Amino acid sequence: MAHERHELYSKSIVVDGLIISKWGEDVFREMSEAGLSAANCTCSVWENFEETVRNLSAWNGWFREFSHYIVRAESVADIRAAKEAGRTAVILGMQNTSAFEDRIGYVEILKKLGVGIVQLTYNTQNWVGSGCYESRDSGLSDFGREVVLEMNRVGMLCDLSHVGPKTSRDVIDTSTKPVAYSHCLPSGLKTHPRNKSDDELRYIVDKGGFVGVTMFPPFLQKGVDSTIDDYVSAMDYVINLVGEDSVGIGTDFTQGYDQAFFDWITHDKGFGRRLTDFGAVVNPAGFQKISDFPNIADAMGRAGWSDRKIENVLGRNWINLLDSVWSI
Amino acid sequence: MAHERHELYSKSIVVDGLIISKWGEDVFREMSEAGLSAANCTCSVWENFEETVRNLSAWNGWFREFSHYIVRAESVADIRAAKEAGRTAVILGMQNTSAFEDRIGYVEILKKLGVGIVQLTYNTQNWVGSGCYESRDSGLSDFGREVVLEMNRVGMLCDLSHVGPKTSRDVIDTSTKPVAYSHCLPSGLKTHPRNKSDDELRYIVDKGGFVGVTMFPPFLQKGVDSTIDDYVSAMDYVINLVGEDSVGIGTDFTQGYDQAFFDWITHDKGFGRRLTDFGAVVNPAGFQKISDFPNIADAMGRAGWSDRKIENVLGRNWINLLDSVWSI
Repeated sequence: MAHERHELYSKSIVVDGLIISKWGEDVFREMSEAGLSAANCTCSVWENFEETVRNLSAWNGWFREFSHYIVRAESVADIRAAKEAGRTAVILGMQNTSAFEDRIGYVEILKKLGVGIVQLTYNTQNWVGSGCYESRDSGLSDFGREVVLEMNRVGMLCDLSHVGPKTSRDVIDTSTKPVAYSHCLPSGLKTHPRNKSDDELRYIVDKGGFVGVTMFPPFLQKGVDSTIDDYVSAMDYVINLVGEDSVGIGTDFTQGYDQAFFDWITHDKGFGRRLTDFGAVVNPAGFQKISDFPNIADAMGRAGWSDRKIENVLGRNWINLLDSVWSI
Repeated sequence: MAHERHELYSKSIVVDGLIISKWGEDVFREMSEAGLSAANCTCSVWENFEETVRNLSAWNGWFREFSHYIVRAESVADIRAAKEAGRTAVILGMQNTSAFEDRIGYVEILKKLGVGIVQLTYNTQNWVGSGCYESRDSGLSDFGREVVLEMNRVGMLCDLSHVGPKTSRDVIDTSTKPVAYSHCLPSGLKTHPRNKSDDELRYIVDKGGFVGVTMFPPFLQKGVDSTIDDYVSAMDYVINLVGEDSVGIGTDFTQGYDQAFFDWITHDKGFGRRLTDFGAVVNPAGFQKISDFPNIADAMGRAGWSDRKIENVLGRNWINLLDSVWSI
């Protein structure tokens, strides 16, 4: 059975909707060897426009230097070609709109530089709206409304994972294209500011949107004691709410980072007030490293998933979503 | 004859190697109605990276708003398609490397944002080399050498019109792709810091390069008393030196600008020491406005040019050059 499952994994398009690991040769090799067809790779969190462009310059260099492991994903065709070539197609993604600053024109500029997925806020309030750790969610600003419509126009996916509930709902209602929680867990399994209620999960999918399920341990029911089967079980919780055609993987792998990184992402703008404390980040047994990715198909099989359901959740659903948002 | 000449003009690809007019609907309409297939349109002179990106944002808006007049020229195919559609393909060009700042990675970033032609220096010394109004030309810096090779790699044409003679020679010797004076006149007709000697004109073409001839009056033999026939005669001077396959048009039209603009371009970095004083800028009789462009084919005919020579200089030579530099 395990052997058959791996064959299904090998022939499937596999997409990870969120990785924020320490970028470099080790992670790129591991992504491609793990059979990841595509991954949404974070290139900006708290950075402003210029800092983000410098990150993108670094990515330009990595695409040249490590072209045997990674290629750019600017279309679904790029992802299919990467799958054929045994490489990982990198979707450049921002986890914040800080790089747009107060300039609507920077949306198109960053799209031209390759950014395909953008989260509207990261944990706290910005020009666009509020984050999930903000004490009051003020909803989408008028500038934020412009940003969403401009992202629709140029073909960028709106990500709402770290966005506050009111702002998320405003974005879902405003966007003319499907939007996503690229990496979240249900608050039905654990109450946490980052987790989404049953109503929220149903609402985004009712409006044509998508849910990527994370296995980031602080948000899992059993925390650091979780296994890969608990992760699959969390996916099933979401699938039972919204169906199997609108759900995918969004691991949030933070591989290779030290405490300084976690301090940076858990303080407002990187250096301000502390927003949360994750404690030890120990990924679920069986899914601790990017190289464990093939295990997920086995775990899905153990949970009794059909081949169709496995292929949908491994990547086909992500592909359909990206195609509909990027085709303009 | 005039009628036949206009037919030749109408069927020819017409390229202007340098326009720095006041961008907006009037100029865009005039370029397309004048039958310009493509023009190198200046989007940066003294600006740094961020200011240039803001200019490019404005261009993104103009490409949408005035799509019936202008389209982007990122390949020779774009220019041919624009010709078919009766529109002008805009080559976004920088007249300085100030927008690269001290970041080699910004070369590729700006190429991705659509910049296809970049002049290495504008009148004075910068990170890369020296300009034609600098008292001592220090030649190409080591960083400048990196910039030239990176421009070769990503497919950007090196322009040397306002570059000092030693730096120009260094760039010609360093570049692995043909380079150009996009808009210059021969000092054999008038001595001027901006004009190029017979040796310089021969040297760039001997190395595979190109000469675009300007009609900017301060550099013409008869100054503001010049006519369109004097302009064609200056082209013939260059063609007699380097042949008819490596020469094109580079008008330097400054249409729509007031004195503040000329003050800005004639002071170092826009606000420093005065470098030159053009006096009154009155374009040659018969070629005073962009709308006069079709007259150039008549003037070429009056000078006894063959149809082949006219078509080459109107645009075919520019197309061949751009194709060889942009095809990477």
